[in-house]
Amino acid sequence: MPDSSRNMFWQSLDVGKDARSTLKGQKTLCLWFTGLSGAGKSTLANLLEKRLHETGRHTYLLDGDNIRQGLNRDLGFTEADRVENIRRVAEVARLMTDAGLIVLVSFISPFRAERRMARALFEPGEFLEVFVDAPLAECERRDPKGLYAKARRGELKDFTGIDSAYEVPENPELMVNTQQCSAAECAEMIIERILRA
Amino acid sequence: MPDSSRNMFWQSLDVGKDARSTLKGQKTLCLWFTGLSGAGKSTLANLLEKRLHETGRHTYLLDGDNIRQGLNRDLGFTEADRVENIRRVAEVARLMTDAGLIVLVSFISPFRAERRMARALFEPGEFLEVFVDAPLAECERRDPKGLYAKARRGELKDFTGIDSAYEVPENPELMVNTQQCSAAECAEMIIERILRA
Repeated sequence: MPDSSRNMFWQSLDVGKDARSTLKGQKTLCLWFTGLSGAGKSTLANLLEKRLHETGRHTYLLDGDNIRQGLNRDLGFTEADRVENIRRVAEVARLMTDAGLIVLVSFISPFRAERRMARALFEPGEFLEVFVDAPLAECERRDPKGLYAKARRGELKDFTGIDSAYEVPENPELMVNTQQCSAAECAEMIIERILRA
Repeated sequence: MPDSSRNMFWQSLDVGKDARSTLKGQKTLCLWFTGLSGAGKSTLANLLEKRLHETGRHTYLLDGDNIRQGLNRDLGFTEADRVENIRRVAEVARLMTDAGLIVLVSFISPFRAERRMARALFEPGEFLEVFVDAPLAECERRDPKGLYAKARRGELKDFTGIDSAYEVPENPELMVNTQQCSAAECAEMIIERILRA
């Protein structure tokens, strides 16, 4: 960690978060989708963004796969790299809420500690943890990217649910079960919760 | 560089950049302010954001000092870290234009290669390099953060303009001289150029 803080100054800016979100006519939010690969996080986040956009909300979706091809292209899948992956995404999500947006973040983010770290960057009530739940067997059956098959064959190491833990959220603001409900139904539940807030 | 690309899939999303910027009634832009420390980049970017905000534009300002306290807090000032600093900021700016925003980036970004790398992430016409010019002697006289004095005393290494080069932009889209013009005048020139585009 560089000892550079003494030469850093927080640049105070005239246009702040309130001004930016007021212009957009909305309250800023970070919707953090966590769950196993194949649980339906991205499908759900995408559907939800579409619905929010239709109602005139200003949104952005940060997706694990997409971010790893740009900002986080230097990171692999060691534990340290996975933590750094989440740290950076959380920081970008914070910048985007600061910009007045409703940000949807779709990352496996298997560890409680890293989700807590992400939450800590936001104001109270701004961060909503959405647990996208589906049994491992069901996720493995879906296996939309063929990753579970690879992990079972030993071609992928540290794969969440197989040889790396997924720590179930203890107090998520929202929980949807994509085995019991369709993506559309899950999206509806979340929309209602957001509009109520 | 991790060999993970084979397990990455670009998640196609329904709400795209056009939809996001249309909702905001604006064309996306990245205004990249480059220049010596003390040249007036942040003052100018801040003033410009204020003016843009007043005209209903949806903006965000990424500022060197602020980003180094969050997203890039793990980076120091070695050459490799400075390149990584700019790479990440450019990626975040790209995500923000993808979100439909007009992004103002205020970083010394002394090297042509890194500004070229940043530019390459954007669509043609979307990236405007703004050279905030002021003579070194004038920047050193202003020295708003006392950094030149420290660098001269040898307490800061690799300080741009003192013992690290600043490569003057060869073909910036915009150039303002903060010794000859006030910040307000410079902002006006840039506003006119943007509204004309």
